[in-house]
Amino acid sequence: MTSFRNIDRSVPRLEGREKVTGKAEYVHHLRLPGMLYGKIFRSTVPHGRIKHIDVSAAAAVEGVYRVVTIDDIRTIIPHPYYGPAFHDQPVLADGKVRFAGEPVAVVIATDRRVAEEAAGLITAEYEELPAVFDEVEAMTSDVIVHDELKPAATFPDLQHLKGRSGTNVALDYKLRRGDVDAGFAAADRIFEHTFRNQQVMHTPLEPFVTVAEPGDGRMTLHTASQGPSFVRIEIARLLGWPENRVRVKVPFLGGGFGGKLYIKLEALVASLALLVQCPVKISLTMEEQFFMVTRHPCTVRIKSGVNNDGKIVARRCDVIWNGGAYADIGPRVTQKAGFTSAGPYDIENVSIDSYAVYTNRPPAGALRGFGAPQTAWAYETHMDMIADALGMDQIEFRRKNLLREGREQATGTPMRDAALDAVLDQVSTRMAWSEPVDRGTGRIRRGRGIAVGFKGITAPTTSVAMVNCYADGSCALYIGTVDMGQGSDTVMAQIAAEVLEIDAESIRVIHSDTDVTPYDMGTLGSRSTFHMGTAVLLAAKDAKNKIAELARELSLPPGNNLPLPELFRRKYGMQAGNIIGTGSFIPDYEKPEKDTGRSTKATPFWGVGASGAEVEVDTETGHFTVTKLVNVADVGVPLNPKLVQVQLSGAAIMQLGFTLTEEMIFSEGQLTNGSFADYKIPTLLDLPAEFINECVESRQNDGPFGAKGAGETSTIALSPAIGNALADAIGIRLTDLPLTPEKVFKALSDAKRLWSAGG
Amino acid sequence: MTSFRNIDRSVPRLEGREKVTGKAEYVHHLRLPGMLYGKIFRSTVPHGRIKHIDVSAAAAVEGVYRVVTIDDIRTIIPHPYYGPAFHDQPVLADGKVRFAGEPVAVVIATDRRVAEEAAGLITAEYEELPAVFDEVEAMTSDVIVHDELKPAATFPDLQHLKGRSGTNVALDYKLRRGDVDAGFAAADRIFEHTFRNQQVMHTPLEPFVTVAEPGDGRMTLHTASQGPSFVRIEIARLLGWPENRVRVKVPFLGGGFGGKLYIKLEALVASLALLVQCPVKISLTMEEQFFMVTRHPCTVRIKSGVNNDGKIVARRCDVIWNGGAYADIGPRVTQKAGFTSAGPYDIENVSIDSYAVYTNRPPAGALRGFGAPQTAWAYETHMDMIADALGMDQIEFRRKNLLREGREQATGTPMRDAALDAVLDQVSTRMAWSEPVDRGTGRIRRGRGIAVGFKGITAPTTSVAMVNCYADGSCALYIGTVDMGQGSDTVMAQIAAEVLEIDAESIRVIHSDTDVTPYDMGTLGSRSTFHMGTAVLLAAKDAKNKIAELARELSLPPGNNLPLPELFRRKYGMQAGNIIGTGSFIPDYEKPEKDTGRSTKATPFWGVGASGAEVEVDTETGHFTVTKLVNVADVGVPLNPKLVQVQLSGAAIMQLGFTLTEEMIFSEGQLTNGSFADYKIPTLLDLPAEFINECVESRQNDGPFGAKGAGETSTIALSPAIGNALADAIGIRLTDLPLTPEKVFKALSDAKRLWSAGG
Repeated sequence: MTSFRNIDRSVPRLEGREKVTGKAEYVHHLRLPGMLYGKIFRSTVPHGRIKHIDVSAAAAVEGVYRVVTIDDIRTIIPHPYYGPAFHDQPVLADGKVRFAGEPVAVVIATDRRVAEEAAGLITAEYEELPAVFDEVEAMTSDVIVHDELKPAATFPDLQHLKGRSGTNVALDYKLRRGDVDAGFAAADRIFEHTFRNQQVMHTPLEPFVTVAEPGDGRMTLHTASQGPSFVRIEIARLLGWPENRVRVKVPFLGGGFGGKLYIKLEALVASLALLVQCPVKISLTMEEQFFMVTRHPCTVRIKSGVNNDGKIVARRCDVIWNGGAYADIGPRVTQKAGFTSAGPYDIENVSIDSYAVYTNRPPAGALRGFGAPQTAWAYETHMDMIADALGMDQIEFRRKNLLREGREQATGTPMRDAALDAVLDQVSTRMAWSEPVDRGTGRIRRGRGIAVGFKGITAPTTSVAMVNCYADGSCALYIGTVDMGQGSDTVMAQIAAEVLEIDAESIRVIHSDTDVTPYDMGTLGSRSTFHMGTAVLLAAKDAKNKIAELARELSLPPGNNLPLPELFRRKYGMQAGNIIGTGSFIPDYEKPEKDTGRSTKATPFWGVGASGAEVEVDTETGHFTVTKLVNVADVGVPLNPKLVQVQLSGAAIMQLGFTLTEEMIFSEGQLTNGSFADYKIPTLLDLPAEFINECVESRQNDGPFGAKGAGETSTIALSPAIGNALADAIGIRLTDLPLTPEKVFKALSDAKRLWSAGG
Repeated sequence: MTSFRNIDRSVPRLEGREKVTGKAEYVHHLRLPGMLYGKIFRSTVPHGRIKHIDVSAAAAVEGVYRVVTIDDIRTIIPHPYYGPAFHDQPVLADGKVRFAGEPVAVVIATDRRVAEEAAGLITAEYEELPAVFDEVEAMTSDVIVHDELKPAATFPDLQHLKGRSGTNVALDYKLRRGDVDAGFAAADRIFEHTFRNQQVMHTPLEPFVTVAEPGDGRMTLHTASQGPSFVRIEIARLLGWPENRVRVKVPFLGGGFGGKLYIKLEALVASLALLVQCPVKISLTMEEQFFMVTRHPCTVRIKSGVNNDGKIVARRCDVIWNGGAYADIGPRVTQKAGFTSAGPYDIENVSIDSYAVYTNRPPAGALRGFGAPQTAWAYETHMDMIADALGMDQIEFRRKNLLREGREQATGTPMRDAALDAVLDQVSTRMAWSEPVDRGTGRIRRGRGIAVGFKGITAPTTSVAMVNCYADGSCALYIGTVDMGQGSDTVMAQIAAEVLEIDAESIRVIHSDTDVTPYDMGTLGSRSTFHMGTAVLLAAKDAKNKIAELARELSLPPGNNLPLPELFRRKYGMQAGNIIGTGSFIPDYEKPEKDTGRSTKATPFWGVGASGAEVEVDTETGHFTVTKLVNVADVGVPLNPKLVQVQLSGAAIMQLGFTLTEEMIFSEGQLTNGSFADYKIPTLLDLPAEFINECVESRQNDGPFGAKGAGETSTIALSPAIGNALADAIGIRLTDLPLTPEKVFKALSDAKRLWSAGG
């Protein structure tokens, strides 16, 4: 048994003191000499042609430097359209608006308040166009949001869509395994249900903010981004500059959750700074964030053929992702969450169609879980409904069908290091599943539910890391991974320290700065520990090898214990020099076949989690409380158990909000609750009285020290566990999220009417 | 003949546009949120015990945050003494003051003007002590400036001085070659003269400035420094922190000239920031710079034994360097300029004693030339005096004695790649030496003079460089070399670009930041092109090898011409990744033997230059004009001819000021002309009408693309060339710099008295 110095050790967050003492840097703090402030004027209609924008009153306000529309942007960027998957999003509305809240113009002023005031004086006239908001309707609607599909050249698998017109479907992902129709025909019973997920928002407590600082043929962006390397590349593409002329610096982030990925405010603010040749800052209000990026509303139709013994023999999933007005990374969500949408079950015949669809809503992108929670809501509610119909225990039914180690997932990828059994068993234990449950009587009823789920990880992606040892033996780690609260600085330091045989606390982590830290695809999708962690491991090993090389060069005997500072001194004659190790990692990955989705390596690793919930329902009012919530995750070896636990509970609390309270409510395309007085995210008072977050003993064999990602796992199965508990308590099944007291009350009232009618 | 894309090409300065458009960053521009301003209160006596410091009136001023003395500093740094060679300099005066102008206390206030006002209200009482100002007197004086010598542990060759007391001699460097007494005894004639160099100042047009920003167990210094790596190491030592907790960032520098080397304001400002836990800025006024660091006044006694045929057979040099109150890098100047103080001549018997001496003057350190101009003033004036006495042509006399390629210099180091003959020949040509000269008659007299000199380069030193290739093929160069106007960014980019077969203009140079750029010993002593240039060459080659490795990994045929972006795309499946090359360089060097100064590799390369001057003297007033000035340098292959020329002319103009006008004048240790109204640096109007700066065809065989340093060469022989021209014009020899009209007038008056007395 190897003993570790830094692994499986709850090293306190390296940045903890800095944060609690208020010393941590955020972009919001940044003020540059001569900096101007931008305020966005937004569309008031969900779909329309812009007839006229009147900026004269705004431009006349004292302190206003300039008012900018797309025509001005075009002098800087001839083709001002951006996006990670499709180049569909204009830097400012270009002739058309596609959702209510879309940026149409920007006021640049010497003062933030002046900019706000002046933006309020802009008016625009629109020729309103019919709009489409629902993803299912959008599949067949005559209302077409984009005239033509414009896939980014960098996404080879989207190129077949180039120039496609007359459709709102931005991507149709297909997976075919076995013969699903034959499967249905042979099955004893068929079950088919439809589930819906609402539109929600990331709500980082640090709203979007970007400062652009123009230089001489150079541009520095200080931005709250999870993907500085992507921002650099995309800004360079827009400006037609080489990468080395664009610098993207990211200090700490006050949360990201997938919202701050790819490119958001950066294209706009960079253009403004180039136009006015001064630093420009735009910081959104909390409320404006609803118009930046959201989580996909999603409709899932799921049909299963099941034998009487409980074996699922065929499953068809139709998943429709409401991407809103601009695709953002939606097509990737569609594909990545699509391929696991039949659930972690060993089913011979599977057919999946997953559609990215444009509508006239605010755009949707990545959000913690990358679509997995939406599909799990469907397949795990569906599983309980089938178990109930078959009269089987919910856990037993799942065990009967679970994908076991080595078996092929629907894509054809064999399951490896995916502790599905273990998480299910542990939830069962923590829920005391074998014990009888007190369901209550009269007005107060109780119930319990469980669910299990899994997630594939975005691929292919690359991470590069660098370890720099200084002459006194201290060292620094250069990584593009953004510490947005998840504790990546600490975990990466642990990995490097373990290799270098020093303490993680002594390592300094250099924050994302594309001039400084090497490439990383982005801090997203639970990939950092596995991907960047491996790059860090390789970089530290490279440094270690170079240290050994130096010892050989100095003719020291192998196994000498000369401390590093002494090696440096002997080499350089003084305290001088560096030893620089680099590491680069791309995981094994096989692109899915276009028509079948077949791939023997569809994911670098599997995110695996199970949840259990107990609820208590007031059947008179519909109010209910989650009294117990258990989340069990397979995170491989937990490198820092405390941080893993915080990640699991944080993700669970977030998904709890999406399950119970959060929903962007629209009326004719207008967001009606775009304020945190109306849109409720969970607070500490909303946490279940009993709240367990833990991981199973497990190991990701190709992960750094056996680890894999942990940031999303507890989002996956949480909603259906609660929904299943609710059904267990009151015998009524809700299929649309969120599970509000109103919906429970209405369902109970309908049921009561039915019961009294049926008598 | 190899043809180059970037070498021997006058690539325009990469930062030129940024500078002329006012976009270039300097520390003076930096304002941080919550930043406080420090103002130094200085000693009014040159030597004394501090009896009392009264800060009460200063502390009572509104807006004053704190007034700090050494007792406060000691709470941050228990042993608050610093310095590169000796740890002799207190962060603030500690019980004693050792020169008039020494920092005694600091006012920290919210506003710079408040701090200034309050500093004016501090009073201090001293018990005055006898003081010593002259370096020759200090050798034997009873006045002892430091009770005990405290060499830095990092200088192994100073350790024998540890604890030595009762002396002002901080270092006694010795060189012994042959038998100098026997040489003198055998010589036909003996010549002995004494020469003096005055105290002058670097006068960077950007005065010293440091901002210290305390973090959580971290410290960031934004400082106008030529040696960020040194600052990091020294601050870490003072604070007892590892290097990786100290970050030193240097943007552009508005000149350095050796003044901004090692550690200057940084220890003080870092301590203040830690005391008040806020960012603190101290920026000196132009006038305060006189009290920070200066160039060594220096007395040189030189004695030569010469045969009647003009062959020098023996030479003894006693060089006494007036280091002022604190050693700074003076001991290194003493040693490095000491070993060449017999001049570039092939002399069998040489004896050199070179002394670093403490006095009660402002400290002296490195200044462009590192002592070489002071010794050349002596040996090249001495050479002309001998030639005159022997009745030999000055050039012929030098040619007879010149060190030729392969011959051993006084240390025993063979001359390699030192074009002494060539520079002398070219000066002779440019001066039309073989033509008769019109010396004038009556009041206006004319004359001409030449001189030649050389310089060893500081060793051992280390440079590390990194080249980072991005996925679009663009690249950045990470170097700690500070571009302070000399154009190092451009030249380093040329070297990297040449290896990578791209254009220098496309490379982005990342500026000194110890968290980012690897170690470099410092931007000093003409070392960057040779040392960092070699490291850059190696880093670029390393990157190139890794590119070739990548091509092999992708199974591409050798010699494939796939562009780099395509290689990246094939490897990573998208625009992603980095190729990082590193290079590290320490030149060959052999430490001199302690008692003989013997070394077969005393310098990485030789700086070699010759100058010629014509003067026109008004013999009534003593006013004289340098009408023509020629500087010819051996810089190896000039990588960027335009930049080399600017370096040569810049250095020459600087030395012209030291030759004609600049002198810090003291009365009882008080600087009497510490203002630029009285202390005159040259302006464009002071340039000679004919001003030629050029290099000879040459090659430094182990330098990058044949290059060596060029930043100091034209300082070496300039002063004696002018002095020799003056002597040629009026037949009178001045031995003390500067060559002022007053001195000429006085010398002429004395001579006239003599003539009339004798006549």
